[in-house]
Amino acid sequence: MYNIKKIPEHIGVIPDGNRRWAIDRGMEKGDGYAYGVRPGIVLCDLMASYGVKEVTFYGFTKDNNKRPKLQRDSFTQACVDSVNAVANKDANILVVGNENSPLFPNELLPYANKRVNFGSGKININFLVNYDWKLDLEVGIKNNSLKNTMSKDIAKIDLIIRWGGRRRLSGFLPVQSVYADFFVLDNYWPDFKEEDFFAAMEWYQTCDVTLGG
Amino acid sequence: MYNIKKIPEHIGVIPDGNRRWAIDRGMEKGDGYAYGVRPGIVLCDLMASYGVKEVTFYGFTKDNNKRPKLQRDSFTQACVDSVNAVANKDANILVVGNENSPLFPNELLPYANKRVNFGSGKININFLVNYDWKLDLEVGIKNNSLKNTMSKDIAKIDLIIRWGGRRRLSGFLPVQSVYADFFVLDNYWPDFKEEDFFAAMEWYQTCDVTLGG
Repeated sequence: MYNIKKIPEHIGVIPDGNRRWAIDRGMEKGDGYAYGVRPGIVLCDLMASYGVKEVTFYGFTKDNNKRPKLQRDSFTQACVDSVNAVANKDANILVVGNENSPLFPNELLPYANKRVNFGSGKININFLVNYDWKLDLEVGIKNNSLKNTMSKDIAKIDLIIRWGGRRRLSGFLPVQSVYADFFVLDNYWPDFKEEDFFAAMEWYQTCDVTLGG
Repeated sequence: MYNIKKIPEHIGVIPDGNRRWAIDRGMEKGDGYAYGVRPGIVLCDLMASYGVKEVTFYGFTKDNNKRPKLQRDSFTQACVDSVNAVANKDANILVVGNENSPLFPNELLPYANKRVNFGSGKININFLVNYDWKLDLEVGIKNNSLKNTMSKDIAKIDLIIRWGGRRRLSGFLPVQSVYADFFVLDNYWPDFKEEDFFAAMEWYQTCDVTLGG
């Protein structure tokens, strides 16, 4: 164990680059997603062991659903497998997204927009599945409060880590991300290694969190 | 003039590092802001000449108002001077922020939450002044539509450029920024140079804008 002084309470994870990883290996684009399941499990364990209280994974979005069916099936299955792999551990699981759509996987309905606690609940693990940032905010509008968006049970984010080199949020939780520090790794998500987490932590130590003050 | 293939339609500017710049020169923290006015004028001219259609400057926020009065006075004055310097040119000026507060400068009331057109209106120049991302969204909730937030007249942002090394949005237009590519320069805003803009443009050419598709 490294000694890390300042641990972010809540980390957002954008596990990008699965398709580019597959192309580099001469595979079909959609075949990369299955290789992104194991990295998520390893990262969750690592975060829990360092005292991170909450992590939110960007699964797939309404925008992503424009992609071909084969890719959709692959990223949906990867989300199901990822959630099942971390449920039943000491974690509280929440899946946020539009469950009233055939594109929301039935297997994840038990966690859809309500948190399910397992074991000693050391860490909150959230997944955005069939998520739509616009709908997220529109639920808040319907409920007449910014505190009652679709993602209301997801806390403010301190640090966002994105794999795959792109420097943008791509619709990731606009309200929770307003003050988040943003760290980008060039390697693709299926090539995740523990050092990525430590690189993010090392950089986070240098961030002076002011919240505008 | 360089030949730039892909010009972002709308650029967000986070002109950070004014106080750190001042400290490095043995000046009072708040004295840096006055040196940030001229860079804004130069950058506006540069953007207009390259065909950028809209630019939004992060002036100051409700969060920033927690700072000492001397600093508040300085950044408020810098905003007033910046707006006055680009108004009366061929530009359409809009100031978005909470005008129903003594911290909103009277000098900018003519532009408060309504756009004023000058000359041939080559470019839309927006300033966020006494801006509050929460209030921005709450106005949308009050008006029952995500299309009627306080910043409703500001378009979707393609590229955000932040000076001063920090990698976060700090509450900058959460709705418009959802898909924006995010470029960070380490130099402080008062040290702005034209090359900064070209570095951002060069990087932007490499960004593959997918909007999640």
